[in-house]
Amino acid sequence: MSKIQPRTLSGFMELLPARQAQFDRMVEILRETYSLYGFTPLDTPLIEASEVLLAKGGGETEKQIYRFMKGDTDLSLRFDLTVPLAKYVALNYGKLTFPFRRFQIGKVYRGERAQRGRFREFYQADIDVIGDGKLDISNEAEIPAIIYQAFTRLGLKRFQIRVNNRKILNGFYAMLGLTEKSGDIMRTVDKLDKIGAEKVKTLLMDEEIGLTEEQAGEILTFIAITGSNEAVLSALEGYRGRNEVFDQGLDELNTVVKYLAAFGVPQSHFAVDLTIARGLDYYTGTVYETTMLDHPEIGSICSGGRYDNLAEYYTDKQLPGVGISIGLTRLFFVLEDQGYLNDALNTAPADVLILPMTDDLSPAIALATTLRQAGIRTQIHAEQKKFKQKISYADKLSIPYAVFLGEDEISSGVCAVKDLASGEQVKLAPAEAVAHIQAGLDKLNQGKPILDKGE
Amino acid sequence: MSKIQPRTLSGFMELLPARQAQFDRMVEILRETYSLYGFTPLDTPLIEASEVLLAKGGGETEKQIYRFMKGDTDLSLRFDLTVPLAKYVALNYGKLTFPFRRFQIGKVYRGERAQRGRFREFYQADIDVIGDGKLDISNEAEIPAIIYQAFTRLGLKRFQIRVNNRKILNGFYAMLGLTEKSGDIMRTVDKLDKIGAEKVKTLLMDEEIGLTEEQAGEILTFIAITGSNEAVLSALEGYRGRNEVFDQGLDELNTVVKYLAAFGVPQSHFAVDLTIARGLDYYTGTVYETTMLDHPEIGSICSGGRYDNLAEYYTDKQLPGVGISIGLTRLFFVLEDQGYLNDALNTAPADVLILPMTDDLSPAIALATTLRQAGIRTQIHAEQKKFKQKISYADKLSIPYAVFLGEDEISSGVCAVKDLASGEQVKLAPAEAVAHIQAGLDKLNQGKPILDKGE
Repeated sequence: MSKIQPRTLSGFMELLPARQAQFDRMVEILRETYSLYGFTPLDTPLIEASEVLLAKGGGETEKQIYRFMKGDTDLSLRFDLTVPLAKYVALNYGKLTFPFRRFQIGKVYRGERAQRGRFREFYQADIDVIGDGKLDISNEAEIPAIIYQAFTRLGLKRFQIRVNNRKILNGFYAMLGLTEKSGDIMRTVDKLDKIGAEKVKTLLMDEEIGLTEEQAGEILTFIAITGSNEAVLSALEGYRGRNEVFDQGLDELNTVVKYLAAFGVPQSHFAVDLTIARGLDYYTGTVYETTMLDHPEIGSICSGGRYDNLAEYYTDKQLPGVGISIGLTRLFFVLEDQGYLNDALNTAPADVLILPMTDDLSPAIALATTLRQAGIRTQIHAEQKKFKQKISYADKLSIPYAVFLGEDEISSGVCAVKDLASGEQVKLAPAEAVAHIQAGLDKLNQGKPILDKGE
Repeated sequence: MSKIQPRTLSGFMELLPARQAQFDRMVEILRETYSLYGFTPLDTPLIEASEVLLAKGGGETEKQIYRFMKGDTDLSLRFDLTVPLAKYVALNYGKLTFPFRRFQIGKVYRGERAQRGRFREFYQADIDVIGDGKLDISNEAEIPAIIYQAFTRLGLKRFQIRVNNRKILNGFYAMLGLTEKSGDIMRTVDKLDKIGAEKVKTLLMDEEIGLTEEQAGEILTFIAITGSNEAVLSALEGYRGRNEVFDQGLDELNTVVKYLAAFGVPQSHFAVDLTIARGLDYYTGTVYETTMLDHPEIGSICSGGRYDNLAEYYTDKQLPGVGISIGLTRLFFVLEDQGYLNDALNTAPADVLILPMTDDLSPAIALATTLRQAGIRTQIHAEQKKFKQKISYADKLSIPYAVFLGEDEISSGVCAVKDLASGEQVKLAPAEAVAHIQAGLDKLNQGKPILDKGE
């Protein structure tokens, strides 16, 4: 029979088992963390009617969408988790209770040009809080606090959540009489990290935007306000009283900074950063980006913000919200690429490999049942293989314990438990074996999936 | 602005939050159970190159496939988890360790005619053990034992795993000189439950298959062998010695039955059933179906079997395996429809709702942090709402505890913890509150997701 060459599409991450175990552990920690803050899990379809998914229309994303006909239905794969959330909330408005707090960790699709570290199928891990008509400002501090908690639980240390407020920016541009150009200006300023101040200034003064040198200078002075959060907030006070929206944004930012501290986020891990604007138009207040301090080149690993109207394309209800999204697949790729994954963590498919030394497997099965009832992941190696091959199997998979069960052990009601890392072997009764193995596993499973050597 | 009517495609399950929590709890139990038996999680792309996914070609499934072009690439959405597994194993053969035990719980796509209880996007929860060249028979007992364990942990009681062996069937047809017709015969016999013995006999004797009345009679006599497992196995001994394949199948079946008992599966929950053949050609030995005893009309909720050649379309390597698959979305639909879901289980997004009674939220945030550190899922209700509205919020979401924190409580270092089911309210220091709430939650979270009233 002629064979088809097996392959996985480019831009689609498919992991080997040990890596998959690490990825899954990260997802589990995110689920746990999001749940601790009262977020409920959602799972929406990967396919939506194109008319619904693309209600907002246009934009750069549209070209990237996987869109196709099935019969006479025009379908699209979701390209983020926000539009499906908007649809879900509009559709189920009467059945939901607000503020509605949901998390969703799922795959999304964008047909980007294939490129190392860019994915066409990738996980996003989102949290959003949606209010009915109103939503308290404290949510805007809690969201990044959750991200701080999540990254810390994952083991990441050297990261910083950068916070700004669009009202401050909009208010500032209004002071300069540049309100109509503020969108263009912000998109340009957004490139500061990538292209530097001089090029931003040039872009601001070129034909398309057309600022005077003075205006461009004022903007660069403004976004050059840096330093401690206290210093930045204090410098912003100097602009107070000139524009109502600005003042409101400054009040909000003060509150967010105050509550971020109350939520236990250390000063080292969040920074007021006036250059953060987020390119997207729907953000209306607080905005976030998150940087790995030792790898600024990879850009933001977690971004989001406050929006006033989640579902305006589907409903007249005013549904303000605040949300944030981790690009999980890309983050995982970067972590692996940069050597951040903790390979000391137990990624074996089983904690124990039982090697039965008798033809009848019943005693091995009984022992496996005892171990499994105690929560120990157990595999019986029942294949007709040599002893050495079975031990090599455990080694290759990094299974921490081998248990031998021969006639002698069976007749004296014990089993031989071997720690495959230390080589230490002891004969124990089943209940003792459980305790012995559990103690070893507790040590082995202490680590976090990310090993960040930074302080 | 004109609105787009929000909707979810027909045939796509999208759950409300409490139901989603129940579904997720079921997935979690399956993951835990599969992991206890040494299966490693896999996650393959939802999209594959059509050439790869449809290597086997033809078949009824092909018409149902979501297939489309993106640029000049011919793509398809996976329609099961077995073909992607075959691709994965063939592609990564040199990097995997055999026997390779993996589980995968993921969505698959089939464009079936829309119909109540039929889904176009649905979860399958699969386990497979793949050998390199050989695979021990004991795996064929362990697989259904895992399913017994999984369903039992979910709370299902009245179900039966039905086991047969294709070699017994093939050997039997060989005895009658009907080897070439055995495929047709088995597909016909497979309909026994649906259409009854008389119609099966008619079909066997019609032009297409063309058996004599005697042959059809022998087949019906054979598949009428029923009773206890012991009785069936004993009746089968009567055919021994007439065909080698038959004898081998009977040996295998005896071994599977013996080890199923060793794995702790009670006689009530598995039955040797000679009518089980599974329509699919790639099964070569043991085959399984699982029935809800009180709802035989819904058909098999979990099926699978032994195959000799997982990846023959991709590689010359002989990769025998055994696997089983739960159609999770359909099962969940049936459980909901038939009133099997345990609505007493805690499905609230949070365990505790904190109601701050002061303008400054810092004390509420500090208390929330304490509760969360103890693993208690906690939400702060910080919205500008009346007290009654906040309590009603907790009620609507079935949040078990409300915690009030006013000036009095803050100054005396306590909080008021109210059990919203009993109405009981106590003032406690934070550490006491943690213990009090945890004790209550332990009781509340004891239940299983399925409430099967049968014995």
